[in-house]
Amino acid sequence: MRTMVTTFSYPSSTYFVRSCSIRENHDQVKQPVNTGIRTNGSFRSPIKVETLSKIAGTTSTTLGQAVTVDENGLRQNIPTKKQLVDPHRQGLITEGGVGYRQTVVIRSYEVGADKTATLESILNLLQETALNHVWMSGLLGDGFGATHGMVRNDLIWVVSRMQVLIDYYPIWGEVVEIDTWVGASGKNGMRRDWLIRSQATGHIFARATSTWVMMNRKTRRLSKMPEEVRAEVAPWFIEKQAIKEDAQEKIVKLDKEAKYMNSDLKPKRSDLDMNQHVNNVKYVRWMLETIPDQILERHQLSSITLEYRRECGSSDIVQSLCEPEEDEKLHGVVEPDYCTNLLNGLSSDIINGSGVLTYLEQRPLRYTHLLQIKGEKQNDEIVRGRTRWKRKIVTMPFST
Amino acid sequence: MRTMVTTFSYPSSTYFVRSCSIRENHDQVKQPVNTGIRTNGSFRSPIKVETLSKIAGTTSTTLGQAVTVDENGLRQNIPTKKQLVDPHRQGLITEGGVGYRQTVVIRSYEVGADKTATLESILNLLQETALNHVWMSGLLGDGFGATHGMVRNDLIWVVSRMQVLIDYYPIWGEVVEIDTWVGASGKNGMRRDWLIRSQATGHIFARATSTWVMMNRKTRRLSKMPEEVRAEVAPWFIEKQAIKEDAQEKIVKLDKEAKYMNSDLKPKRSDLDMNQHVNNVKYVRWMLETIPDQILERHQLSSITLEYRRECGSSDIVQSLCEPEEDEKLHGVVEPDYCTNLLNGLSSDIINGSGVLTYLEQRPLRYTHLLQIKGEKQNDEIVRGRTRWKRKIVTMPFST
Repeated sequence: MRTMVTTFSYPSSTYFVRSCSIRENHDQVKQPVNTGIRTNGSFRSPIKVETLSKIAGTTSTTLGQAVTVDENGLRQNIPTKKQLVDPHRQGLITEGGVGYRQTVVIRSYEVGADKTATLESILNLLQETALNHVWMSGLLGDGFGATHGMVRNDLIWVVSRMQVLIDYYPIWGEVVEIDTWVGASGKNGMRRDWLIRSQATGHIFARATSTWVMMNRKTRRLSKMPEEVRAEVAPWFIEKQAIKEDAQEKIVKLDKEAKYMNSDLKPKRSDLDMNQHVNNVKYVRWMLETIPDQILERHQLSSITLEYRRECGSSDIVQSLCEPEEDEKLHGVVEPDYCTNLLNGLSSDIINGSGVLTYLEQRPLRYTHLLQIKGEKQNDEIVRGRTRWKRKIVTMPFST
Repeated sequence: MRTMVTTFSYPSSTYFVRSCSIRENHDQVKQPVNTGIRTNGSFRSPIKVETLSKIAGTTSTTLGQAVTVDENGLRQNIPTKKQLVDPHRQGLITEGGVGYRQTVVIRSYEVGADKTATLESILNLLQETALNHVWMSGLLGDGFGATHGMVRNDLIWVVSRMQVLIDYYPIWGEVVEIDTWVGASGKNGMRRDWLIRSQATGHIFARATSTWVMMNRKTRRLSKMPEEVRAEVAPWFIEKQAIKEDAQEKIVKLDKEAKYMNSDLKPKRSDLDMNQHVNNVKYVRWMLETIPDQILERHQLSSITLEYRRECGSSDIVQSLCEPEEDEKLHGVVEPDYCTNLLNGLSSDIINGSGVLTYLEQRPLRYTHLLQIKGEKQNDEIVRGRTRWKRKIVTMPFST
């Protein structure tokens, strides 16, 4: 079996491995990959790990607040034992000992112009809860998600794919519960899923899933999951899936014929994380900023899929390409009487009642995206994306 | 008495009133101000208000989680009664009924390259706790801080000045307590202060203070505080001050001779808040990005003072000017052996032991800042700033 994998990192550092293959009989993939990538070693990964024996043998304690100083003079505050409850973060272990749930109140600076949480805030909260899940395990060594077994094998987690579906955006002050858990993905990968729901009603606001593989921190090669690590990780895997996908649709690669393009995007100091790599949320911002204002004003993102390809460093010059998958005129990029003309062309049963609304809702606006690094000879892909958009209810012109 | 006031808004919308004077015998200042400013009416202000009688008559309840839908189809979640405890935000009323304290865990995406909370995160948390203080009062009408009396009088709060002193930056996962309260500032103004401390040790990490005045939302003129509003607000005033200031130092206005300048700064969609104005945190980012990387890598901000002048809209082109107040060579913008030469020129008692450290600490690096809107005829000031920086301990070259 040869499994094609594209690997990257999450939330912020992406590593360049384009379509490498994992060979089952080798602990590490021999296929050479780009080694000219800056990395400072540490890495944020949302993996949740603990051996089953440890789960069974641990009693619930609250997070110790002792702050120690590490070898670099930095104060550290990482629990050394598994925690079942984190009263400060309002987190707890669920799913019979392997899942994590955190209660979060949407903050004033996490909402946008319409008083609802921004996509960026939601992505941040996914990262936060994933890391808190690991944090609770008591196995977190350096603060960035590698298990002890992974540290011993010089392995890091890199994310290859992420999908977020958002039905409702929580509003400022709303209390949400975020559940996250991990599962197997093929023989050597891991899936991490999330559910965001209203605490008041239990209504599900958003679902998300992501896929992870292991990479050797030094060689930058993909790696099989060593048995040592599997023993740590596998006991945490559960079957539950936040998003049911029959088959993953491929995201096509855009080229210079794309309808929209923002060029000369330069990372700023504040866009960089501690690895001096561009933060994942910045990627999404660059992607969405290519969509016309007319669309962004009337629509909200209902789905985003990201396929990570390589990292982006502080000196890279980035291009953001964007292509609508159907006629944008249906969705707000219109001449004043376009809607009337459109209606004239529709059959009367569609127009009647909520028919037009249904018609538009059944044809969500879709965009394909590409972020790439502008190179002298060729452009290197950072991330491909696909977004779906639905009309904001408040500005729906036909919602009478 | 004529009190000179410069007024602006916080956290995101600043209103143009340059050095207006409040006349005691008029409810509203007659001095004309720029009226060509976009505003959508709503406004985020951290004012905390409730009449004393209401305080006395209210029992502690927890925040209701009912989400209602307002006239615009937006879900709302604002308590209609005073709350003494907010278990979800881990907030409670303090100071005998007039102050507010919230326990916060520093999140993974709130820290920067050195694993400590960024200045932006700290500013966000100040805004958040201030608004939650108002939220708890049960008097919050539109979600942006105006009291019922202010709404009746078409008044909004605008911030004129803000100062933040940071001794220690909390680290990722650290639990901090943020206290905030309000006090009188002159006859018609209000002061809001904050303290951020370690929950584990009680050690104070940061102190902040801000000054606020009232403005008529429609005329854009400064206003005296109507008696009706004073009756709401004054019972909440306490004398305590987070920062003891003998006299406020004036921040000089920079001109085109400033040593550093970033031009053509353009707000992006994601920099705008719900009033389509540039967010306050973006101002600070623009300010600090003019400081040389060499300085930013080795230093951390220990103090920032902001004097707000006017708002910045989505179509404005912004310039960020920056001038060091002393020789930067002392602080890291150095040739390789500059430190040695510097030491040779110092007296031995300064060099001995921690003498050099003390010497450098006693002379913090200071910068003056100016953000202005590039206009055809003249440049309009947005905000003046002053920052102080101290060496990061981990990179202190003399700390043996």
